[in-house]
Amino acid sequence: MRLERLATEMLIRAGVSPRHAETVARSLVHADLRAIHSHGMARLAVYLKRVEQGLIDLDQEPSIHKQAGATAIVNGKNHLGAVVGEAALQTALELAEQYGIGVVGVAASNHFGACSYYAEQAVEKGYILILMSNAPKSMAPTGGVRPFFGSNPIAAGIPTGVEPPFLLDMATAVAARGKIALAAQKGEAIPQGWAIDERGRDTTDPVQALRGALLPIAGAKGYGLSMLVDILCGLLTGAGYGPDVHSLYENDFFPQNVGHLFLTLRIENFMPLALFQQQMDTYIRQIKAEPKMEGQDEILIPGEKEWRTAAERRTNGIPLPDEIALELETICAKYQLTLEEARIQ
Amino acid sequence: MRLERLATEMLIRAGVSPRHAETVARSLVHADLRAIHSHGMARLAVYLKRVEQGLIDLDQEPSIHKQAGATAIVNGKNHLGAVVGEAALQTALELAEQYGIGVVGVAASNHFGACSYYAEQAVEKGYILILMSNAPKSMAPTGGVRPFFGSNPIAAGIPTGVEPPFLLDMATAVAARGKIALAAQKGEAIPQGWAIDERGRDTTDPVQALRGALLPIAGAKGYGLSMLVDILCGLLTGAGYGPDVHSLYENDFFPQNVGHLFLTLRIENFMPLALFQQQMDTYIRQIKAEPKMEGQDEILIPGEKEWRTAAERRTNGIPLPDEIALELETICAKYQLTLEEARIQ
Ligand SMILES: NC(=O)c1ccc[n+]([C@@H]2O[C@H](COP(=O)([O-])OP(=O)(O)OC[C@H]3O[C@@H](n4cnc5c(N)ncnc54)[C@H](O)[C@@H]3O)[C@@H](O)[C@H]2O)c1
Ligand SMILES: NC(=O)c1ccc[n+]([C@@H]2O[C@H](COP(=O)([O-])OP(=O)(O)OC[C@H]3O[C@@H](n4cnc5c(N)ncnc54)[C@H](O)[C@@H]3O)[C@@H](O)[C@H]2O)c1
Repeated sequence: MRLERLATEMLIRAGVSPRHAETVARSLVHADLRAIHSHGMARLAVYLKRVEQGLIDLDQEPSIHKQAGATAIVNGKNHLGAVVGEAALQTALELAEQYGIGVVGVAASNHFGACSYYAEQAVEKGYILILMSNAPKSMAPTGGVRPFFGSNPIAAGIPTGVEPPFLLDMATAVAARGKIALAAQKGEAIPQGWAIDERGRDTTDPVQALRGALLPIAGAKGYGLSMLVDILCGLLTGAGYGPDVHSLYENDFFPQNVGHLFLTLRIENFMPLALFQQQMDTYIRQIKAEPKMEGQDEILIPGEKEWRTAAERRTNGIPLPDEIALELETICAKYQLTLEEARIQ
Repeated sequence: MRLERLATEMLIRAGVSPRHAETVARSLVHADLRAIHSHGMARLAVYLKRVEQGLIDLDQEPSIHKQAGATAIVNGKNHLGAVVGEAALQTALELAEQYGIGVVGVAASNHFGACSYYAEQAVEKGYILILMSNAPKSMAPTGGVRPFFGSNPIAAGIPTGVEPPFLLDMATAVAARGKIALAAQKGEAIPQGWAIDERGRDTTDPVQALRGALLPIAGAKGYGLSMLVDILCGLLTGAGYGPDVHSLYENDFFPQNVGHLFLTLRIENFMPLALFQQQMDTYIRQIKAEPKMEGQDEILIPGEKEWRTAAERRTNGIPLPDEIALELETICAKYQLTLEEARIQ
């Protein structure tokens, strides 16, 4: 895929090893293929910037820092998030192979992209993956007004037979901060329920929202889920947590110190994989055959929309949003590459 | 506690062994102590009814059906849910003691009450518990109109030092079906966002809602979470799933075949327990000290409200809602006991 080669090449020119550059590029293109543009090539510029600034450590490899029974801690050594995530996933899969379940806590990592990138890999190998990450502060605890928790995503991948896999991948915030920043730029209102202002009042004014905080999904339940993710990914692993997870942007000083948790399950410990896959297919078809709402022709399974988009884009190419294409052109120029080589639309 | 003794005694008179009767009674009173009245003594009548009807199997003990590495399946043998849950929790704790993590899938179980009952026990022993259960159908998949998934709860308990533990315990439905039934009885409207009617339209009419379906929390994200719980608790374990989890009520034929998943983590595999507890305390105090919304004096930690209510009720007794007290009187009469002996308000 040309876009992947382009990103790989730019990362290599910034000093990343070819193998790691490929991993990061693959994780970014994974997101753009699924129209999760917020976690695709849109992040390349800031990754490169942090590499150049020496805020990412390219000289050390992520390593297992503690392993006992079916648990391990991976020290990301402040490498690029996708490199760390990939290492943690492999460790978790090995543990699950041996013990039926593996849990890997990850410290000293960085932004690692869309969780579904890792979930899909586990699923391809016939494993269940439950995955979480903490993230820089953007949400307040319920009753509070100041960002403290990240939009800490939770994801799960579950293998199927011939149906697309179950791939739930969700932030615990209602909407990404990036969407609000975009609305502010365009001078548009944001929907009710996305954010609060500095005094904790619901707001549809993106400028007020950016001074306030994002709202968690489902009120206090989302706050609880976000806090749970923060504890498991941060406090338990030795990574940053709460306001000590540093920003990917507007932070030229600190490593992010993001934490993740990878939990892998070996299906064969519970039932034969083939039977499980067959039952998943039947179950999914049963759900999709349920009676629909007025005006709705279809029921989707988590991850199905993204799955289809990826299939279509693998054939027809990825139509990158203009602002991302523009930014890519700038960094291409800097690294003396042409976007044309890579564009596949 | 008198209420606990009363429930124990009634269960014994219905044929449950003293040890198991105590477990079930404890789980019910746990909920009432925390003002989760929907999962307390309000369930005793239907538990007793199903025991009498032979829909609960008192003659066999839950047993480990498959164990390999750090995973196991517990066959609940259709015993009372709390009895099965207790057995699964013990197995999961033993696995975590040995492997640092334990995962126990549970099949052939029944309604097992509030998840926090189990989470609190794990936390007292210094373990993290993540717990899920599927439940009889009440929610439609997003885009559908007919109940397919249960309000499948997700819970997590995390130990602290001197602060109350983190105890998140949440249904994946916005509101319980029981609340809608109550509104229908009283002829009151229900809030927007709780339910849809038979055609999938938002409704505030509880009668229409009861013919339709509950709404999941956070839209499609809650549908995804509920489906995830259903797969892990049902499909993976051999329990019922989707519409094959049978109702606790209005079902005089089928065992419920509920499934659960117990996942325990041994903190010592990651860091010294005392350090973890101390860091949790500091973290919680930091969150509670965050600036508050207008009109809000306090930020609560998940489980804190219930924790306080339980402490207060342990001293002052449990003020049971009238309809529950009335129902208890009826079953007391039947089992020749007096509620007065037990009442501790
Ligand atoms: N690394 C980080 O720090 C970080 C932080 C936050 C979010 N993220 C990523 O952001 C991405 C987007 O998250 P989001 O919460 O905005 O996603 P989203 O709201 O678009 O989708 C959430 C999930 O719901 C599913 N879904 C949506 N509509 C559905 C429907 N009608 N029927 C069935 N399923 C449906 C999707 O397939 C997806 O699995 C994710 O990839 C996440 O990992 C990453
Ligand atoms: N066994 C079953 O089949 C089944 C099915 C569904 C629900 N349940 C049980 O029902 C009970 C109630 O579930 P629910 O979803 O209605 O609970 P809820 O909405 O009252 O609370 C959900 C969680 O959020 C926390 N919370 C609420 N407000 C908060 C705030 N302001 N700040 C911080 N935390 C806050 C609570 O402490 C709790 O942990 C649970 O015990 C659950 O296990 C059981």
